[in-house]
Order: sequence, then structure tokens, then C-alpha cells
Amino acid sequence: MRAIVFDGQTLSLRADYPTPVPDDDEVLVRVRRAGVCETDLQLIKGYMGFHGVLGHEFVGVAESGPLKGRRVVSEINCNCGTCTTCDAGRPSHCPDRTVLGILNHDGAFADYIAVPLRNLHAVPDAISDDEAVFTEPLAAAFQIPAQVPIDHDDRVVVLGDGRLGNLCAQVLARITKYVTVVGKHPEKLALLQSPPDGGDYIAPAATALLFEFEPSRDYDVVVDCTGSPTGLPTALSLVRPRGTIVLKTTVAGEQTMAWAPIVIDEVTIVGSRCGPFDRALKALDANQVSVLPMISARYNLSDGLAAIDRASGKTTMKVLLDIQ
Amino acid sequence: MRAIVFDGQTLSLRADYPTPVPDDDEVLVRVRRAGVCETDLQLIKGYMGFHGVLGHEFVGVAESGPLKGRRVVSEINCNCGTCTTCDAGRPSHCPDRTVLGILNHDGAFADYIAVPLRNLHAVPDAISDDEAVFTEPLAAAFQIPAQVPIDHDDRVVVLGDGRLGNLCAQVLARITKYVTVVGKHPEKLALLQSPPDGGDYIAPAATALLFEFEPSRDYDVVVDCTGSPTGLPTALSLVRPRGTIVLKTTVAGEQTMAWAPIVIDEVTIVGSRCGPFDRALKALDANQVSVLPMISARYNLSDGLAAIDRASGKTTMKVLLDIQ
Repeated sequence: MRAIVFDGQTLSLRADYPTPVPDDDEVLVRVRRAGVCETDLQLIKGYMGFHGVLGHEFVGVAESGPLKGRRVVSEINCNCGTCTTCDAGRPSHCPDRTVLGILNHDGAFADYIAVPLRNLHAVPDAISDDEAVFTEPLAAAFQIPAQVPIDHDDRVVVLGDGRLGNLCAQVLARITKYVTVVGKHPEKLALLQSPPDGGDYIAPAATALLFEFEPSRDYDVVVDCTGSPTGLPTALSLVRPRGTIVLKTTVAGEQTMAWAPIVIDEVTIVGSRCGPFDRALKALDANQVSVLPMISARYNLSDGLAAIDRASGKTTMKVLLDIQ
Repeated sequence: MRAIVFDGQTLSLRADYPTPVPDDDEVLVRVRRAGVCETDLQLIKGYMGFHGVLGHEFVGVAESGPLKGRRVVSEINCNCGTCTTCDAGRPSHCPDRTVLGILNHDGAFADYIAVPLRNLHAVPDAISDDEAVFTEPLAAAFQIPAQVPIDHDDRVVVLGDGRLGNLCAQVLARITKYVTVVGKHPEKLALLQSPPDGGDYIAPAATALLFEFEPSRDYDVVVDCTGSPTGLPTALSLVRPRGTIVLKTTVAGEQTMAWAPIVIDEVTIVGSRCGPFDRALKALDANQVSVLPMISARYNLSDGLAAIDRASGKTTMKVLLDIQ
């Protein structure tokens, strides 16, 4: 089959990659569409030391098992199901987990992917393939209210106007009417200001360019989606005493900052990663989030290397891969 | 009056320092006993740029107001009472606050101190002066369960065997039977292993020397009381995925560490500072904590400089000042 493979040094499109053979608890999924994520770009730079087929945001059709013939999306953490961490209800943190396209498990930039049956969610008919590709990052946005109680009158700042910042802003704007998105790109912020026709979309209250933003230390919650080491210090300069910073940014290597303000101001920092797929699918099904305007470009899998190159552009939002 | 004064460069015992004149909302308190805290030692090194009379852990007698003649302890944050932060129920974070002996307010290493009436708590008769001096740091320990829900079967590590680590361990050992204190000083850890006769004291389940401690990543809560920049990275190496680190350590300057594990493991970091005085007094009154064995030495105020010198010794726990 075709696959985009990273061998630790080089990214290449292979025409002859072996089609995966599902384990007993796995299902073969024929991939229909996939999205390029910032994490993919990091992996190519050596993050996690990944070798194999890239790709973890996708929709496909199950080729076997009880969901055979259905369109499916898949949670990305493949857990053992038997260790104390899994037993304790934290399967996405299983120490023996593999992660689709990220850790010891071939991903979805390919004609086929093998995934555990328990990771699959059937996609409602009202959700298009293009929309379904956003299920994984949208679930990560829904992880924020799953971890942090947010009031309808809380003042929230989302730092970062990229793909994840956009989705987090949309999710949070449904909870509180005081969401401000701060970014560096007018054209990305504009996507949040102009809700599409139809749907039940709610725009965040305000957007601001970082260099024009008047900082004040009175935000209840600050979400760092910058993908930059400057995100956390900026968040600390905005959050109120006893407020909460949600940290979505993973940066390789070590960072330097002053920690004392965290104690003096009794700030809470919450690391936040993957989230609830069922909640994301429900929101897409009910047309409560707008994802299609984020699609910057679309490539056939056979042009996958160009797609990944395009995804790293500063003004690019989401690049999709058509697999069929 | 006598006072131990730091002028930004030099620490000196003054015999002629002006007795404070209380504002309308303040009470003059005749100090009976005070404790030297790690923060005092930091202030002398330049932390907070403090100038004035040191000292914020103390017990005294109110010389005026409704508590006149009563023994009192005092919360250390003096808030404005009118700003939005005070209105929101976070007076200890008032941006215009002064802090006794720490920020723009003369402290308690003196014959007298002036403090806002609303900061005072009457001390029950059963609590001795020596014990009452521990109210402020004990309240800081009680801030942990006030911020973080802790289950009776949660596995907790307290990093640090100093004064604050000892008090946090005692408070947490009353909530869960799985508290391990990790420190560097056998004689300090021994204080936690041998509960005094009488009282309702509960020892932590285990103590361990840091270099002998077998780390595992399965602790629900890790409390950093090390006072060292190595505390937070050590805590991150011990806390389980989705576990909580309580950060008590304030270190001047910037620290360097990898943040990505906070996100990948969805760890929560909670900065924790001052706590509830009423809860601390209740525990002292009920003999639920043991503080007297922590007293390493006792000096008259007239030997206050020697007391502060002694407090910085590595094996010293708590040094008291007799003011009268």
C-alpha cells in the first residue's frame, strides 16, 4: 500500500509499504481522509524518536469487526487494558501504550491502518469526512472543560490562533461569553470573527493581535495553545491570583522561567492532552463548531510530501490528505 | 523599642526603633514570642527588596481594641478590603496588600507590632506561646487540603524534612495513611517517626532519605517543600499521570526544566502559600499536631542576630525569639 514513512532521518512516500495485519483485538481501517497536525511536523524533527507511518487525525471505513462498512474515527492511545493505570480509569496514560502515528504504532497517512476495536467511534452520517478529520483535535479542546470547571462568567484568554487555539476558543465560547483569543495572525483570528452561515456556532467575544493586546492580570483561565516556549510565561502574566493556566503546548527540551509567581499567586497549571471523542462527535453532529473554514489545502496521498511541506507554512491552518 | 531591622544591606539590632503607631483599623500588639522562618533568611539575602523590621510568625498580647489583653496571632497579609480582588474573596492576594515583615509593613522581631484588627485571632488558653508561634506555618500546611481534594487512600509524598515539610506531613497524615516524607536529614526525619506522648498526633506512614528512596511514578499527590530548585523536577519524576504537585517552594530567579511531561502526563501543579489560621488553631488546641520537638533553640530578642544566624544552620529546625 501507499504510506508516508519517516525512518528517523528522511520522510518518504512509499508505494510498497506492507499493509498492516490487525492483531486479534484490532480492526483494519481503510483511510479516507487525514489531517496534518503540528505534532506530525515535530515528529519529523525528531520528537519522540518516531519511526514509521505518520498520521493520527483521520476518518476511514472499518473493513472488519462489528463496525464493518461503517465510517469510523479512532482514539489514538492504544492501551494494554490490564495494568494499574488502565484499571484506575486512565487508559490514555497506560505506560505500555502505543500511540497511532506517534509512538510504536503505524499511523494513518496510508491506504490502511490497524487500530484496536475499542478505540473506534462510528461517525454519524451528518458529519462529512472533512469535518470528521477534526474529531481528534476537537476532543483535545473538549478536554479543557473536562479537567477545569469553567463558569459562564469566567474571563478566559486563549493564547494562539492556530488550529488548536481555534478549536479551544470555539469550545470555551459555548461555556462563557468572555473569551478573548490572542494571536499573531490577523487572517487566522478573522476565521473566529466570522461565523459561517447556519449552524449553532458561537464566536468568542474578542480577538486581539498579541502586539496590540493590553495585558491585565485578571483572567480566570488562560489556555496556552501557542506551541511556543513563550506561551507559559505569557500565560502567567495574564492569569489572576488563584486562576488556572491550561497548558496544551508541548515543547521539546528544557525551558527557563521564574517559578516563584506560581506559588506567590497560588496559580494552578493543568497539563492537558487528549480528550473525549464522544463529546467532539456530538458537537460536530449538532453543527456547534465550525471547522471547514480552517482547511487551507487538500492533497492526494500521492502528493503527501508536498502536503506536509505546506502544513509547516506560517499562514497555513489545516492541510488535508485525500487517501482514495 | 527594640527591633531587628534590615536596611537592604545590613541586619542590626536597634534599641531605639520607633514604637509603631497603629492606624485606625490597626491594633498595637506587644510581642511575646516569634519564630525565625526560611523566608526571613531569604529576605536578608535581598528577596522582595524588603526594608524594615523582620518577622511574621509570632504571638503577642493586644494592647487595644476588642481583643485588648488577649493573646493573639495574626494573619500576615494586610489587604485593602475594597478592590475587586478583595471583593472576590481573595484578600490574601490583594494587589495593594502589605505583608507583615515581608512587604512594606514592619514585622514582629520587636517589642511591638501594629496589625489590622481583622487579621487577629485570639489564641485558646490550651495553646502555649511556643506552640502558637507555629500557627502561621501550620496554616500554610492546612492550605493544601483547602486547595486539593485528597482521598483517605491517596498516596502522597512530601519532599523536604524541614519545618514546613514536617507540618505538611502531619496535616496530610491525618487525611491519608499513605504519606511518605523524603528528606536529606536523618535527625529531622526522626522527629516525624517518634510521636510525643499524649496528644492525638498521627505519624506519616514512612520516611526515607532522598538518596535511598526508590522512586516510582505512582504518587497521587507530591508536595514540594524542599525550598530548592530541584524540588519541582523531582516531584514531576514521582507524580502519576493526572496526579497533582503542590508547590510550596519559592526560589528567587529563574529555573530550567522540561515542561513537556506536564502536558503529556496531564499533571496539575498547584501553587500554595498562606492558609487558614482558624483551622491551624483548632488543630493546635486539640493537640493534633506536634510542634514543640521542632524547637532547636531559643534566644532573647537582645540576642536576635545570633538567633537568625543559628536559624540558617543545616540541622536547625525552628529558632524562637523570646521578646519579653
